[in-house]
Amino acid sequence: MKKVEQIKIKKGMKVDELVREMGKTGVMQGSRVGKAVDILEKMIKDKNCKIFLGQAGALIPGGMRNILSDILRNKLISVFVCTGASLTHDLAEALGYNHLQGHEDMDDKELNKKGLDRMYNSLMDNKVYEGMEDFFEENFDEFSKAKTVRELLWLVGSNIKDDNSILRQAYLNKIPIFCPALEDSGIGLMIWGRLMKGKKMEIKLFEDLKEIVDIAWTCKKAGVVYLGGGVPKNYIQQAMQFSPKSASYGVQITTDRAEYGGSSGASLKEGISWGKMDKDGEFVDVYADTTVVLPLIYASLKERV
Amino acid sequence: MKKVEQIKIKKGMKVDELVREMGKTGVMQGSRVGKAVDILEKMIKDKNCKIFLGQAGALIPGGMRNILSDILRNKLISVFVCTGASLTHDLAEALGYNHLQGHEDMDDKELNKKGLDRMYNSLMDNKVYEGMEDFFEENFDEFSKAKTVRELLWLVGSNIKDDNSILRQAYLNKIPIFCPALEDSGIGLMIWGRLMKGKKMEIKLFEDLKEIVDIAWTCKKAGVVYLGGGVPKNYIQQAMQFSPKSASYGVQITTDRAEYGGSSGASLKEGISWGKMDKDGEFVDVYADTTVVLPLIYASLKERV
Amino acid sequence: MKKVEQIKIKKGMKVDELVREMGKTGVMQGSRVGKAVDILEKMIKDKNCKIFLGQAGALIPGGMRNILSDILRNKLISVFVCTGASLTHDLAEALGYNHLQGHEDMDDKELNKKGLDRMYNSLMDNKVYEGMEDFFEENFDEFSKAKTVRELLWLVGSNIKDDNSILRQAYLNKIPIFCPALEDSGIGLMIWGRLMKGKKMEIKLFEDLKEIVDIAWTCKKAGVVYLGGGVPKNYIQQAMQFSPKSASYGVQITTDRAEYGGSSGASLKEGISWGKMDKDGEFVDVYADTTVVLPLIYASLKERV
Amino acid sequence: MKKVEQIKIKKGMKVDELVREMGKTGVMQGSRVGKAVDILEKMIKDKNCKIFLGQAGALIPGGMRNILSDILRNKLISVFVCTGASLTHDLAEALGYNHLQGHEDMDDKELNKKGLDRMYNSLMDNKVYEGMEDFFEENFDEFSKAKTVRELLWLVGSNIKDDNSILRQAYLNKIPIFCPALEDSGIGLMIWGRLMKGKKMEIKLFEDLKEIVDIAWTCKKAGVVYLGGGVPKNYIQQAMQFSPKSASYGVQITTDRAEYGGSSGASLKEGISWGKMDKDGEFVDVYADTTVVLPLIYASLKERV
Repeated sequence: MKKVEQIKIKKGMKVDELVREMGKTGVMQGSRVGKAVDILEKMIKDKNCKIFLGQAGALIPGGMRNILSDILRNKLISVFVCTGASLTHDLAEALGYNHLQGHEDMDDKELNKKGLDRMYNSLMDNKVYEGMEDFFEENFDEFSKAKTVRELLWLVGSNIKDDNSILRQAYLNKIPIFCPALEDSGIGLMIWGRLMKGKKMEIKLFEDLKEIVDIAWTCKKAGVVYLGGGVPKNYIQQAMQFSPKSASYGVQITTDRAEYGGSSGASLKEGISWGKMDKDGEFVDVYADTTVVLPLIYASLKERV
Repeated sequence: MKKVEQIKIKKGMKVDELVREMGKTGVMQGSRVGKAVDILEKMIKDKNCKIFLGQAGALIPGGMRNILSDILRNKLISVFVCTGASLTHDLAEALGYNHLQGHEDMDDKELNKKGLDRMYNSLMDNKVYEGMEDFFEENFDEFSKAKTVRELLWLVGSNIKDDNSILRQAYLNKIPIFCPALEDSGIGLMIWGRLMKGKKMEIKLFEDLKEIVDIAWTCKKAGVVYLGGGVPKNYIQQAMQFSPKSASYGVQITTDRAEYGGSSGASLKEGISWGKMDKDGEFVDVYADTTVVLPLIYASLKERV
Repeated sequence: MKKVEQIKIKKGMKVDELVREMGKTGVMQGSRVGKAVDILEKMIKDKNCKIFLGQAGALIPGGMRNILSDILRNKLISVFVCTGASLTHDLAEALGYNHLQGHEDMDDKELNKKGLDRMYNSLMDNKVYEGMEDFFEENFDEFSKAKTVRELLWLVGSNIKDDNSILRQAYLNKIPIFCPALEDSGIGLMIWGRLMKGKKMEIKLFEDLKEIVDIAWTCKKAGVVYLGGGVPKNYIQQAMQFSPKSASYGVQITTDRAEYGGSSGASLKEGISWGKMDKDGEFVDVYADTTVVLPLIYASLKERV
Repeated sequence: MKKVEQIKIKKGMKVDELVREMGKTGVMQGSRVGKAVDILEKMIKDKNCKIFLGQAGALIPGGMRNILSDILRNKLISVFVCTGASLTHDLAEALGYNHLQGHEDMDDKELNKKGLDRMYNSLMDNKVYEGMEDFFEENFDEFSKAKTVRELLWLVGSNIKDDNSILRQAYLNKIPIFCPALEDSGIGLMIWGRLMKGKKMEIKLFEDLKEIVDIAWTCKKAGVVYLGGGVPKNYIQQAMQFSPKSASYGVQITTDRAEYGGSSGASLKEGISWGKMDKDGEFVDVYADTTVVLPLIYASLKERV
């Protein structure tokens, strides 16, 4: 039985050194940050492995946009699944709007008068919708050619100039983005607005599902990475049931908990019963907030791959 | 300033008496159970109010199915939004399959061999998929006529015999069900299976969005009820932005927390900044697990309406 | 394998009927409320079983005072362990001060000016300290005869008139109260104040420990009940190591979680490794807030015992 | 209004550079890690400030021992308050026993047979108690001279050889350790064992309280740091009421939440109403697990002070 190694902190320590120290303890959540990077390194270096990244939660208002787009820029993953909100936040920043530093105790009635929408302690100016209206109005004829959400999102990305954009980097690097509930977002509303004015959008439900199942079905090995739960996690988990060997690697970062029974808090191990996770797979659940551990994990990973 | 009333428990107490005692304390989460029932009673009795219920999480494996279908049977709500998983669980039970009592420490490898899928401490037999395949194979020609997910779900409900089914009760009582990520579910996979065999399904993305926005737009007053977060909550919150007076009433039951910034844990108050919640609205966030407090709330409510 | 029973809610339902319905589901946290009552009923009816109740958290500001004192009045337990804060809150109410209904968003600077101390959304007037000073000044000569904290607390209880007081009911029913960190509380400060004025208090550390270990050591069977974690839980857990058969029954209600490694969130099962919980014991962890589930549990229990 | 800065990750990044990037976002929990280090830096560099560090939870089984003892070695704090369990874990390691890497799914009955005590996924061999018995037997005559717990703990520290020991570093650097519930711990049991054999220990309750209140009372400025909640946090908070300017700085790392009303999850802001936190104080609540963020915070801090 291995002993718990007590972490040693040195002056001038690099992030990767720290994360390796954390991993060596072998216990509690701290060590799982270390284990997460080890597993991520393995799955990225495994040439046969396609990595599916699921993302939910307000990561872009939370400052994680460049990390996500850098992951795409460096083609560290094969498939990106996220919420419509994240894509809306990305587009907002791409169009030159910034999320703002607020406070969770601000007066929401005052904010409403000023046209500022609050997400915990971050804010976005309502004017962003005007900019997005213009962007969609301008490009809608092109967008309306899309037959799947994935195609639509690449078309959106191709019309974005900002290189830190997730949508743009997915387009440039030909990484499929899936967004199973796009209509549940600001982008969804932009499209709805055009449709109400008589424009057309012919995307049929279930077309994207064919595509993600096909990617899962045909890959030699799969790895899953979950930043938060919700639909993105569940959608990838579902696809894993079709992957010949289920997921061989898994990293989950979540603030939810298993005891309430929902998919968001479910342990990766539970996936073995379903055939979503390989029984011999390597995986770790990190019970922490993504905005706290993703920077740590990515800075460490950047040293290794 | 009102004093905190100390709860008095009597022998033979009815649930509604208990909930009223809890509410009288005026503080902590216990009192919010009481406040939640008070607000629900108000919104149900307000003839001008359309109630939007959003539901996420494993409530049917958790024993809440009859409560949900009873809510629909009694037309207590106007719109139901949920995850594809919940509808799949409902259909499974409607087809005669039961969720089973397991344990969170069961060996997932053994369960996988036995074809039992685990959701925390509940289980479902994989054979359910065969029954569902048959059901969809049999009825698909009818289902394929649907132009929206809402239409599809009513068609599914019309072909179900079980009166405790959510899908059936929604159909019978003409309560629209929206499910923005239906493809992320067992039902989604059933449809995908038919499409792979050459059948057709012509539902276009964004058609349902038109419908829910229209309901929100045209209602005199709106009330929102969230059992868990995820897409169902966010989808209703989004629709509220189009409701003339935003939501006038709100009850949220969640185990998430605001501090992580995501929509699932966001306070209802935050919605005021967005114009999702009326600044003079009555609302309460109950930080508790739905399987613990929904039975309590519904038993109390049943006494009152 | 047993199937998950779907909860049925009837009009006019009694709390005990509801709790039994919840228990029958057999899964998720809701069923654990039912299981908790079943185990509590068993341990109370087991004539050989001494029950140790540990309590932490702001239950008295949260309206649970009468439930706790009623448990003592009915001699449902043998040993009560709690925080100094709970005893201070109890004494405050006994002296005629009330906790007040506030709001978590109140301006703390304003409250400070008004002399109101906030505990989440409950408040207490600073004047309570004057009343407590008088009470201790008056009775200190008697109190100073105590050789243990347990003796001291019974002396305090004997000088209280309010029959809803925990301290009084413990005294009247000769139920030992242990409070391992009494100095960490308002009552502790009252004693400190007297000592600073030259009065004496001769209680020696470790005297109470002898007594609780002795109770554990000599009991035929033990049951443990935890409302929250902290020192009260850990102190009882520690004593269980000396009980001949460890704890035979256990009910834990907690909002903490095991994944962070601390004692407060530790599962009762973990106690088996330590010899704190009998390997064949009956126990349940309910992951819920005490102010939400204790009223439910106690109302159900009152019907049964 | 400041915009949210998107975090940039560079290859070879130092921890302090990362933490500064995290702080610059200005929102969500990630930025609070940055803010925590900024406030800690300020309070350490403020020559007039006495820093009170409260610690609860299984930090030493979790690999944080060297960080804690290094904080004492470098005299970064003035007062240390912790649980008896932490001191017991520290002593165990000082006597040559190691915490072991286990797994949360281990069979507790098997562990019990093997004499291994589990704390989530860490383990300690029961044999540690023999070593501790010997240590206390050997040194008890010296220990029994202590008049306060603080004196006792320095005496224990003076008899430890291991320089990574918290107890030893507190002794060497004359930093007072307070442990208001020492009897609730393995060390407490060791003393109890000696007392049962007729030895004496004359420490009187409330003696330590005089000392910590005196330190608070006489300091020009105070800073508070909480790693977890429980008695250590509450005990320091209580002392702050006696500090002329309350706490001028505060950093809290907790996994608890305010909504349940207990002291452990209470926001630092709430302390303003009580006069525990200065109304103009600088403080931050970081909702995260200490084993995840303390290494990050300390590595960054080490660069700055």
